[in-house]
Amino acid sequence: MVSTDTLVSGTHFKAKDSALSVGHKSLAVSFSDIAAMGATPKWVLLNLTLPKIDKPWIKGFIQGFAKLLSQHKAQLIGGDTTQGPLSITVTVMGETDHAIRRDGAKIDDLIVVTGELGSAAYALKNPKKSKHCNAQLHSPNPRLDLSQQVKHLATSMIDVSDGLLADLGHICTASELAAVIELNQIPVNDMVKKHPDWMSYVLAGGDDYQLCFTINLTDEDKLPDDCHIIGQIIAGKGIMVLDHHQPIETNLKGYQHFNQ
Amino acid sequence: MVSTDTLVSGTHFKAKDSALSVGHKSLAVSFSDIAAMGATPKWVLLNLTLPKIDKPWIKGFIQGFAKLLSQHKAQLIGGDTTQGPLSITVTVMGETDHAIRRDGAKIDDLIVVTGELGSAAYALKNPKKSKHCNAQLHSPNPRLDLSQQVKHLATSMIDVSDGLLADLGHICTASELAAVIELNQIPVNDMVKKHPDWMSYVLAGGDDYQLCFTINLTDEDKLPDDCHIIGQIIAGKGIMVLDHHQPIETNLKGYQHFNQ
Repeated sequence: MVSTDTLVSGTHFKAKDSALSVGHKSLAVSFSDIAAMGATPKWVLLNLTLPKIDKPWIKGFIQGFAKLLSQHKAQLIGGDTTQGPLSITVTVMGETDHAIRRDGAKIDDLIVVTGELGSAAYALKNPKKSKHCNAQLHSPNPRLDLSQQVKHLATSMIDVSDGLLADLGHICTASELAAVIELNQIPVNDMVKKHPDWMSYVLAGGDDYQLCFTINLTDEDKLPDDCHIIGQIIAGKGIMVLDHHQPIETNLKGYQHFNQ
Repeated sequence: MVSTDTLVSGTHFKAKDSALSVGHKSLAVSFSDIAAMGATPKWVLLNLTLPKIDKPWIKGFIQGFAKLLSQHKAQLIGGDTTQGPLSITVTVMGETDHAIRRDGAKIDDLIVVTGELGSAAYALKNPKKSKHCNAQLHSPNPRLDLSQQVKHLATSMIDVSDGLLADLGHICTASELAAVIELNQIPVNDMVKKHPDWMSYVLAGGDDYQLCFTINLTDEDKLPDDCHIIGQIIAGKGIMVLDHHQPIETNLKGYQHFNQ
């Protein structure tokens, strides 16, 4: 089980973001992907491209990176350091006795998300409003423990990194099915929900690093804490969003990887 | 056995280099590292950071990459695509029944290099002089086959990517020993040898992607073709370069990864 992610300064984080946060986040995004596969991270490679040797920055970066690494008992086994525009590639190798894929959702399966969505996107747009949301953006907590608890229930799983509509969309496309979700069932922080753009943060914000998975209808009672049912898998194509049982039109999409 | 390398435009290749060559080379450098460990490449991850979607460039890149990949029967199993300044990270996982390290050289071991050194550096500085040398620079051939032939002889091995003095230096440092090499034993292309700077190309040029390894004195007769004995491991520290048995002073170093 392998996951690899490249984070580029100016695209995935801001040049002024703290080195500690960049170090944490560059590992957290790959750990989150490993969690989505039902796996546990074991070995890590770190490729750092740096414009120059900036010792305080490197120290902060390594501190953020190493803390998360040791927290999950993973090992740094190699990497590369090169000169160039700031970017970080992290590759994580994980192990599991039960791998979860994106293409296993079945008709009538319940759709579940963990934690809360939209907080990171809220913090990105409103950086001075909420310490709680800022922490979600800068120090996301990959749901590795929860993934181990739900992996034998999940028929499909993904992590919400590009926004709920985009990532649930990947499950639907891979499973050749559609989804219907109820906006008001999605777990959202109170402060985020007061913002006029809350729907966009929640549906298309990205950077949540929560899990989105599907389970058989009969497994509802087996869900652990912090898992929230937001909808159901149906036949068809695409995702229908309901607001108090009424379908609503959204032009929202998840994070687009290329702005052309 | 894992090897990962990041190649940055402007540092490891020129923006005007052909996409075909960049595709080939970005895989070749990691394959070369896998060869140096006595391993065979099996699985590959490709992380591409592109400024924009340039279809002809991507097509050329993939063509160069895929040709070398299939030539060695390795499989592309994943990766990432992001927007940002052009850079490529390739991670190769390989297998071997007999891993070679850098720290196994012993006193009196013979020092061996494959192929020819300095041709890539010559081509970099004299781009219009030699098709043969240009090919060494733009389409280096990782010595995977030769590595399999010599892995049971080699007491230590490295690939020459940063220049002979730098890379043989890594063997010496890791093995806590020194080396003495005879300049005129190093295999050099005739055209390169006519250039006034040939010594610098050969000793410190980099980008050769040949193998440098050490063998027991008694194994000399077992060396396959295209392997050239250039010196011997001795007690001490550093590398002594002889020119017709006379020590010479060089201020040459290998490729420096950071220009501060």
